[in-house]
Order: sequence, then C-alpha cells, then structure tokens
Amino acid sequence: MLYFSNDYSYGAHPEVLKRLVETNMVATEGYGEDIFCLRAKEKIKKAIENPEAEIFFLAGGTQTNQVVINSMLQKHQGVIAANTGHIATHEAGAIEFTGNKVLPIKHIDGKICSDDLRDFLNTFYNDENHSHMVYPGMVYISFSSEYGTIYYKDELVSLHNVCKEYQIPLYIDGARLGYGISAEDSDLNLKDIAENCDVFYIGGTKIGALCGEAVVFTKNNVPLCFTTLIKKHGALLSKGRLLGVQFDALFTDDLYLKISKKAVETASCLREGLIKKGYKFFIENKTNQIFIILNNEKLRKLQEKVVVSFWEKYDETHTVIRLATCWATKKEDVDKLLEIM
Amino acid sequence: MLYFSNDYSYGAHPEVLKRLVETNMVATEGYGEDIFCLRAKEKIKKAIENPEAEIFFLAGGTQTNQVVINSMLQKHQGVIAANTGHIATHEAGAIEFTGNKVLPIKHIDGKICSDDLRDFLNTFYNDENHSHMVYPGMVYISFSSEYGTIYYKDELVSLHNVCKEYQIPLYIDGARLGYGISAEDSDLNLKDIAENCDVFYIGGTKIGALCGEAVVFTKNNVPLCFTTLIKKHGALLSKGRLLGVQFDALFTDDLYLKISKKAVETASCLREGLIKKGYKFFIENKTNQIFIILNNEKLRKLQEKVVVSFWEKYDETHTVIRLATCWATKKEDVDKLLEIM
Amino acid sequence: MLYFSNDYSYGAHPEVLKRLVETNMVATEGYGEDIFCLRAKEKIKKAIENPEAEIFFLAGGTQTNQVVINSMLQKHQGVIAANTGHIATHEAGAIEFTGNKVLPIKHIDGKICSDDLRDFLNTFYNDENHSHMVYPGMVYISFSSEYGTIYYKDELVSLHNVCKEYQIPLYIDGARLGYGISAEDSDLNLKDIAENCDVFYIGGTKIGALCGEAVVFTKNNVPLCFTTLIKKHGALLSKGRLLGVQFDALFTDDLYLKISKKAVETASCLREGLIKKGYKFFIENKTNQIFIILNNEKLRKLQEKVVVSFWEKYDETHTVIRLATCWATKKEDVDKLLEIM
Amino acid sequence: MLYFSNDYSYGAHPEVLKRLVETNMVATEGYGEDIFCLRAKEKIKKAIENPEAEIFFLAGGTQTNQVVINSMLQKHQGVIAANTGHIATHEAGAIEFTGNKVLPIKHIDGKICSDDLRDFLNTFYNDENHSHMVYPGMVYISFSSEYGTIYYKDELVSLHNVCKEYQIPLYIDGARLGYGISAEDSDLNLKDIAENCDVFYIGGTKIGALCGEAVVFTKNNVPLCFTTLIKKHGALLSKGRLLGVQFDALFTDDLYLKISKKAVETASCLREGLIKKGYKFFIENKTNQIFIILNNEKLRKLQEKVVVSFWEKYDETHTVIRLATCWATKKEDVDKLLEIM
Repeated sequence: MLYFSNDYSYGAHPEVLKRLVETNMVATEGYGEDIFCLRAKEKIKKAIENPEAEIFFLAGGTQTNQVVINSMLQKHQGVIAANTGHIATHEAGAIEFTGNKVLPIKHIDGKICSDDLRDFLNTFYNDENHSHMVYPGMVYISFSSEYGTIYYKDELVSLHNVCKEYQIPLYIDGARLGYGISAEDSDLNLKDIAENCDVFYIGGTKIGALCGEAVVFTKNNVPLCFTTLIKKHGALLSKGRLLGVQFDALFTDDLYLKISKKAVETASCLREGLIKKGYKFFIENKTNQIFIILNNEKLRKLQEKVVVSFWEKYDETHTVIRLATCWATKKEDVDKLLEIM
Repeated sequence: MLYFSNDYSYGAHPEVLKRLVETNMVATEGYGEDIFCLRAKEKIKKAIENPEAEIFFLAGGTQTNQVVINSMLQKHQGVIAANTGHIATHEAGAIEFTGNKVLPIKHIDGKICSDDLRDFLNTFYNDENHSHMVYPGMVYISFSSEYGTIYYKDELVSLHNVCKEYQIPLYIDGARLGYGISAEDSDLNLKDIAENCDVFYIGGTKIGALCGEAVVFTKNNVPLCFTTLIKKHGALLSKGRLLGVQFDALFTDDLYLKISKKAVETASCLREGLIKKGYKFFIENKTNQIFIILNNEKLRKLQEKVVVSFWEKYDETHTVIRLATCWATKKEDVDKLLEIM
Repeated sequence: MLYFSNDYSYGAHPEVLKRLVETNMVATEGYGEDIFCLRAKEKIKKAIENPEAEIFFLAGGTQTNQVVINSMLQKHQGVIAANTGHIATHEAGAIEFTGNKVLPIKHIDGKICSDDLRDFLNTFYNDENHSHMVYPGMVYISFSSEYGTIYYKDELVSLHNVCKEYQIPLYIDGARLGYGISAEDSDLNLKDIAENCDVFYIGGTKIGALCGEAVVFTKNNVPLCFTTLIKKHGALLSKGRLLGVQFDALFTDDLYLKISKKAVETASCLREGLIKKGYKFFIENKTNQIFIILNNEKLRKLQEKVVVSFWEKYDETHTVIRLATCWATKKEDVDKLLEIM
Repeated sequence: MLYFSNDYSYGAHPEVLKRLVETNMVATEGYGEDIFCLRAKEKIKKAIENPEAEIFFLAGGTQTNQVVINSMLQKHQGVIAANTGHIATHEAGAIEFTGNKVLPIKHIDGKICSDDLRDFLNTFYNDENHSHMVYPGMVYISFSSEYGTIYYKDELVSLHNVCKEYQIPLYIDGARLGYGISAEDSDLNLKDIAENCDVFYIGGTKIGALCGEAVVFTKNNVPLCFTTLIKKHGALLSKGRLLGVQFDALFTDDLYLKISKKAVETASCLREGLIKKGYKFFIENKTNQIFIILNNEKLRKLQEKVVVSFWEKYDETHTVIRLATCWATKKEDVDKLLEIM
C-alpha cells in the first residue's frame, strides 16, 4: 500500500532518531529541565531571531491547543477561530472540555480575513447585551490551515493589528508551520511568524518528530506558573528530554526547514501530475496537502492500493479526499501514485 | 554526577530503542490504529492471561490518571485515594481540573487498608446528609505506592472485595507496576493484578520506555467512545505507533519483567549497603525506591556528587530523600554511591 | 417611564405573592423536600396529564439549562442548538464552562427545522472522522423561541421523531412556555409539550414568579442522583419552598395559563396598533415579544419615555428593538405606548 | 411538630416580606441594575463603614462559594479550608466541579488557626516539588463556623496577616455572619469583618430572607467582568430585584443585626435549659447552633415531636444532633422543646 493519507504515517526523520539513540544513556533531570531541552530552546530562539522568546515543549497538537488557550484566556473570554479551524471541528471538544467557548467566524479557504475579524469584534462591543456573552479573548489561526492554505505577510500583519487594537493575543497553531512557510508562494519565514503573533507553536509530530510541539511565547507573555498549568492538564512528560532531543535535532543545520521544503516539493510534483491528468481540485494551495474531488467509484478502486484521507462528502456521487506528503515521502511513491491514478 | 533521583533519568531501554529504529520507516495508520499497537495489545493480553482485556496507550501517568478517572466516574462521584496518593498530592490538581474531587483517606505506609476503606464507605452511606456530598465512585491505589511499598495478595483481594460490595471500580496506578511485582516479597504477578482490579495501567515511562502507559480494562468496562474521550482530554497522539512499538518491545521475551527485576535487585544491593553503613530508613520496602533520613549538612555534601530527590522535611536538621534505581542503573554506580556515602 | 423592555420588570403576580405571604410562617424541610414543592409537583403533573413525570425546581433559566444539559449529556457528547438559541448566544458560555460544546445549527426564524436536524446528524455519522468530533447528544430548542416564534405540532413531532431515530433527547427551554402555548396560532398545549419531548422546563421567572423554573422529566429519565448534581452546580436552594410555593400558586386554577394568555392578548393589541401605524417588523410572531425595526433617531426619542430592549443593529441607521408584554402589562400602558410612538 | 433542625425552615422575616409586597409593582431594570439593589448596596456600605466596597447579590450559599472562589483564584491555585469547612464537605464537590481543588487543613472546633495556616504555607513553599502541586491561592473560613464557633478579633487579624504575608485573599463565608457577630462573646462587628478580610458574604437565606447572599469586595478587588462570570456560573437572576429588595429591608433600621441577636438569645435560653437538664454538648459555642450528644433511643423518641438535624454518628449507641434557632424561633417553642426533652 502507498500511504498518502496524512503526514504522520512514518516514524521520525533519521536524524532525529539518530540523536535519540546517541543521547539515550545520558542521565538528565526530568520534566523538561534537561540539557537537551535547554539546547533546543536556544536553537529555536536563534532560528526565530528572538533571544527573549520563552519556549515549552508539549507532546501533541490538541493538547497544545488546549493548554495554551486555557492558560491564556481570562475567565470571561473565549477564542475566535475559523469555523473550519481544528479546535472548532476535530478536537472532540477539548477546548470546551476545559471551560472555554470557541467563537466560530466564517472562513475563506480555511483562513480568517482581518475585515471579518474586525467586524466580529466591533459587533460584539456594540451589542448592548455583550456582558451576557462570551468575550472574544484570543484569535486562533492555523498555519498552514486545515485546507493547506497559508496567510501572506500582509494578511497576517492585518490580523495582528486588529488583535492589537482590541488587546487580545493572536495564536498560531503551527502543526504544519514548516510546510506553510516552505510553500513557494510564502512570503513569511520563522522570524516573521514570531514577530507577527503573540504565541505560536512549531509542529514537530507532522514534521520529522515522533511526537512534540514547541510552544513559543514571544511577547514576555508566558502565563503565570505555566509548568504547573501544563501538569494540571496532564501534559507534563517526566522524560521531557524526549521532546528536547528531537527539537535539538530538528533545529540543527536547518533540518526542520529542509525537510519541510522537501515535502512541499514532492507535493508540487504530485499536484502537477494531477493537473495534467485533469483531476478537479477542491481548493488551491501550495503546501503539502492536496484536496481533490473524486468520483466515489474511482475512490473505491484507488483505496485498494493507496491509503488516502476522507475529507468530506462533495455530493451524492463524489467525495473530497486529502493526499498529503511529508518529509518521508519519496519521489518514486509520487510516481507510483500518479501511475495508479 | 551520579543520578539516583528517580527512574526517569535515562532514555529508553536499548531493546525498545532498537525496535523504534527498525520500525521507523514502516507507514501505518494514525491514532493507535496501527499494527504495532495491535501487536502490543495482543502481547499484553497474553502476559496478563486475559484474552478479553481492552487496552489503550497514553503518553504519561498524570494524563492517564486524569483520563481514566474522569471517564469512569459518574457525575455525582469522586475518587477515593490515600492522602499520600499521587493524584492527591503531586498532579497539580489535574483530577479536580476536570471536575472530580479526590476523597482522601488515611494511608498506612502509602497504602489503603480495606478496613479503613469499608469504614469510609459505610460512614458515607450512613450519613443522612450524604446526598449533599460527593459520592465515592472509584478507589485509586498505586502499585508500588509513592513510598515504594506494595500490596500483598490478600490485601488487594480484600480491597477489591470492598469495592465489589459497594459496586465501585478499583483502579491501580501502575506507573511502577513492574518494580512492584518484581519485589522479592511480592506474591502478585501481572495476571493477579488484572484479576483483582477493574482497570489498571502498566507504566512504561519509568520502566524502559521513552514515554507511554498501557491502560487495561479487564471487566468489559471500557467507557463509551473512549477514544473520543482521550481526544477530548488532548491525549490522543496522532503517531500512536510511538507507544505501540515501545510496548511491543517491552512485552517481547518478558523484557518488561526482566528489566523491572534488575532494577529491584540493584536497589536491594544499595539498600543492604546503606543498612551496613547505618543509615536510617524513613520507610521499609523492597522495590526500586529507597527513602532515607539524612542530616542536612550531609545531604548538602552528597548533592555535590549525586543527584537525589528531596522527599520531605523530616525535622529542622534532617531531610527525607529518595534514591531510586531503574533498568539503567549499573551495579558499579551503586558501588560508587555507597563509597561516596 | 413605561417598561416594555422585557417580561421580568415587575415582581410576582399578586396571587403568587399572596401565597408566599400566607405560607410564610409554616415551618418545612429544606432543599425542596417540603409540602409546597410536593403539592406543586402534583399540580404540574395534572396540568401536563402525566402522572409519572418527575419534577425539580431551579431558580433561573441559564442555571436550568446548564444543569439539565450537563446532567443529561454523556461525556463524549454536546448539544445541538439553533445558532440563535439562548445557550448559543446569551448565556456567557455557561454550557461550555461546565465542559459541553454547543453545536450550532442554522435557524429559521429562531427555530430548528427537522430536515436540517436530520441532515446534521446524518452528516455527522457519515463523516469518517467523527470519532474526533463532539457527538451530538441532545437537541435544545426554545419555546417560544428567542424571536418569539413557536413550533407547530407537526414541527415538534418531526423534530422529536428525528431525535428518537438517533436516540438522543429533545429538550425544550420553556422560559416563555406559557406565552408560547397561549399564542392564538398555537396548536400545542402543556400535555402535547410533555409528550413530544424528553425533558422541558416551565418558566416561572418570566411568567408570574419572583424566580423559579420547573424542570420536567417525562420519560423516566431523571439523571442519577440529580439532587446531588443540582447541588454540585451550586443550584440547590436551602429554602426550596420558595419555588414550591410559587409554582403551587401558578398551577392553581390555571393561573399560569391565564396570565400567559393575558400577556399575549396585550401583545396582540400592541402589534395591531403598530401595524396600523406602519411600523416595520423584523419578524412575524404572535407571542408576547414584538421585534420592530426603528430609525436610530426615532429610537433615541422613544427611549426618553419608554424602556425597550436593544436587539441588534439592523443597518447603519436602523436598529432592531424588542417590545415585550407580560402578565403585569396593562391595557392602558399599551395605549400610552402607541400614543407615544 | 417543632422545627429545630436548621435556620432555614421558615419563609422570610415579616419586614422583608412586607417590602417585597410594597415594591412588587414597581417596574425596574433586570439583572441587579435596579434601584432596590442600588439602595441595598448603599445601606450595606454604611453598615460596614466602607464607602468603597463593591457588592453583588447571589441566590444561595454554595453558589456564592463556587462563584467567588472560582472567580478569584488564579489558574494554578486552590483554596485552603478547614477539613470541616462547608466547601470541603457538604457542597457535593461544587468547588472541584468548576476546576478548583480544596486544600484541607486541620480544624480546631471548626476553625483554622493562624499557626497551622502559616505552617501549611511555609511547608508548601519549602517543598522542592511544589511546582507539581496546587498552589494555595485563597483561604476560606466560615463565620460562624459549621460547629457554631466564632473567630475572635485577634484570631481573625492573625489569619489575615498570614494571608497578607503570602499575598493571598482571605474569604469569609458568612452564611451565618449575623448569628456569629451577635454571639455574646463576639468582639467583632460588621466593620471589623469587612476590614479584616478581602471578600466576604453576608448571608441572607438563613437570616431573614427567602433567598440571597450579599458578596462584598472590600479591597478594590472585584474580578474582571464579574457580572459575566456570575452569568457563566448560571447564577445571574433576571429579576435581580428579588435580592435587592430583601437586603434593602434587612439593612434598614438594623433589622439584620436585630433578628440575628434575637435568634442567638433564644439559643442561649435553650442552651441553659439543656445544661440544667444535664445534656452532654459535642462542642461549646454561643451562636444559634447547638450540638449535643444523644442516646440513639432517646433521639428516636425526640424525633416523634421535634425535627432535629443528624450531625454525625458519635459511637455505636450515640448520635450528635444539631438544634438551631433562627429569627423566627419563639421563646415558647424553646420552652416546649425543653419540656419534651
């Protein structure tokens, strides 16, 4: 079987694994106080060109969203997200479970537009009954988005400006951050990301790690006793080194960006091949995810040889599927896939 | 520096790491639906001699406690634990954070006695105001306990009988399960554990894994839609294979028990050495944790060469410290430590 | 000033108050175990013609919604509501605060249509990723709705049928139940309401009481230890009699329905007057709430003499306001209002 | 039957009821924005001699505790309470339900001693693992306590000093505040209470009101958007006037203190009578609650004529019961009770 269903089908990038092997018998402190976490943090600060950033490692994406959002919101506040946002749809209510409402706002290709955001906030504060409502206390965006699209610099700056105007933080879910900034049309790098939001995370699980996300606070805005809050969420690993070692590897010699770029290039090949073959795209984008509309009959046949992701029902006879590449996807797998399709 | 502070100072047991390397480039399904998780589950079922057990993998201990307790309790119930239990003391309120009260009960050497449990339950139901109180809905014990002690078979059976009488589940936190059943005075094996409780977890993080705990439901009592509940807690890893591969290795050729036994033997050597040197023990036990009372001055000097765990203040001039061995502790490290002390 | 802003501007209906005075010095049990609560329950059971119904009294509407929804949902479930539903908009996130997601669905004049409900449920279960999503576990509707509209019998039956098909309860927020069933176009009475849902509440606060809502479970479906759950929500009044006495009065000699009817008739007079004067209605309905669109300038002037409710901004120069009558609204107040307008 | 089981067996004090009747047909704003709430607040500020205090009205005691504690604690904190405190025992886990751990501390006659408090806090901060624990973030005491005892001025000042030292607020649950400061041995008045804590509530339900507690913030320390937080807890009454009118009456002509004093005097008569008859007291105190130890046989007979409260089992053949007086208890009822006993 060929695996194109997602970007978490394989283990770790060989360099990451190698580092785990090399450091295995070094004894360290627990709970992220170890030398590897420390080193990884220093390397990330260099990569984002922000020596004052504060960084924490968590195991997975939903967990990271729950911890960050719950820790940063004030008690009367909820979090604005596109109605297609991961926290609004596919996290089984993890945000609400810990008491916080997700305030959905319309998406455009998976993204929030700054005009819509300003309207939403403006309408809220002009509503004379707003003290009976959940206050918007944070904006959540994903980069790249659930539809594989990216924000361009002017869009991100505009969103951040609206947030600053209303004094609420902008949070970027970067589960696929590397694949986003590596897209050929991206005009943002890691430094730009760090500058133009208040907190974000650098996704490891989907980009070369076995598990792990690096949360970055860039505005001297770490929640009080954040390590205790992480523990309270059940999210503090005793062997915190597991995450530190992996991010240390990912941020050595630009590995994170290199492997992100490779996956995006592989996706581009696949995209071109699909265009040539006349496939219909559900949405246009240039990152590692490709969404196409397939005849159900064709889908059934394809699934005999390829693992793909169901995305949504398109109509009675068609389905939207996702094809994803990752750092591990080989050029020959793309060729095989195109041959089959 | 010598590390004797805990049992999570090193990486993974070499066999576990080897398996991670070997399986790294095999593509699989996500979220624990992979072949490695499946295999690990089969092996665990064999090890506990319970073909109908249902098994789920989670990343860490506090997370596991939060997920299991929150998922199994009914809405008017809380969980009984020794007042020294991990959930009652060192989990930053993770159980309460998701809405459940921990009902503390007095401990004897870190353990709950079945008579005390029956008294507690009896007193509760005889209290005419009990409908204004949190109902006891589960019993939590840790094996081995936070003080390194273990339950003997008759004790465990008695506890379970009280639970059955009151129709509430008995849950065993097995973060150090292997070290517990490997103690020379233990009369319980994995099968006994599985039989004499309703749900337990087999700790991986502290016994050879990089991370991971295996939750085992043994009485056809998996909570409805448990995978969704795990996700809701932010605890569902997309690369679930990470946990499956490790438990597959740990339950191949009895590795889990072998390395547990080794750690307990190393601890025994250390314990004997300390007895010979006249050290005063805070508590007697035969598992991988040793608690001794040290003069503060002596402690300061010791800490120049050895990393140990602060446990609690004993009096103005003395401190209780913990020394722990693990699968990775070498005999020569014990010798060095004894020499220093 | 004339008060037309809402239906909770006055104290209690004189008959309710009289009963409070008469019973004041009768000593009773606390927590709703008193004779007045008992009597009120019996009268309500008669009024809904359901001798097996189980009834509980709570102080207010948001509280009731939070307690009922949180107590009835299973842990992996959320509650479907119109995106205009009170729980989705004006309860400050009370439902999410206790861990449950509100799943918004499009409204038609404040109501949910059974076809839309079936589509929603069908789409959910056909989504291959639905185990990563919040399961729909209850349907919430308000009767009369936030827009003053009502469900007709066939609509309610259809909704309930969809719920039964998917085995989830239908819950009716009856904060304005009396005003709804008293509308001239209503083809539902209290018995019909009780039959065609699984749980509902009879609103007292807005219909003659100082405070109080009566929750009615009609399908042998009271959550386990519900009184304890009420206490856990902080919602159990020690002087439960306060609620019992009031509902006893409201359900003596059909007072509840009589005063509801009177308010609806007063609203009809007002509605006719407004039509004659050419006012533009935001929505058509026949209950005690009237929504009209006013020029902002006109609104400012009106507010010098009349207290009205801001509903929403209509456009740059117009605003939607609500005018509400209640059991206490006098015919001459309507005349005065029409004169002013 | 005679009712001595508690202080919430009757309706409202006649003056309170009279005010409800008089104001019934005055139309007002909702949600506590009315003239009666305003007036009551002014009168309370005068009574406590603190013109800058900020006051909010809630319906019941458990609700008030849940709202205040949840709103004032930071996210990593829990609340210290005597292990006999109402929040620790008889609130069905309401504090934990909204995510906050109650940190129990030993009681002396229902009270917390400042030395024990300092020890607890000191031990916490000296514990090297305290970042894995729930931080003590508030101290809860009840006045009078669950055992009817009171803090003397020096005790309260000492407690408050420890709180100030550790920069955490002191919160007084004043469900029976009036009965406490009216005890003949009390050296505290309302002003002293207000000065020597950070937030407290003046209990209405048990002292003359139908329902209602007045929360008083005395140190410019109202939580941000507190009204929204109250709503989020489901605790905002739309007819907030119900609470305002009652507290307006209670704080007119010192009614609150007068009726508190009367109840305490009636209790004193009863206490003296019981002493003369040789009854054994479970605890000594001088407020409106009396705790005596009765032979079970005697208790059964007594219960044929008198409603009393079960408090706890004393031994196999004896039970502790509570007898309580209130503003409504008549001298002749005390005589009758003494005759029966």
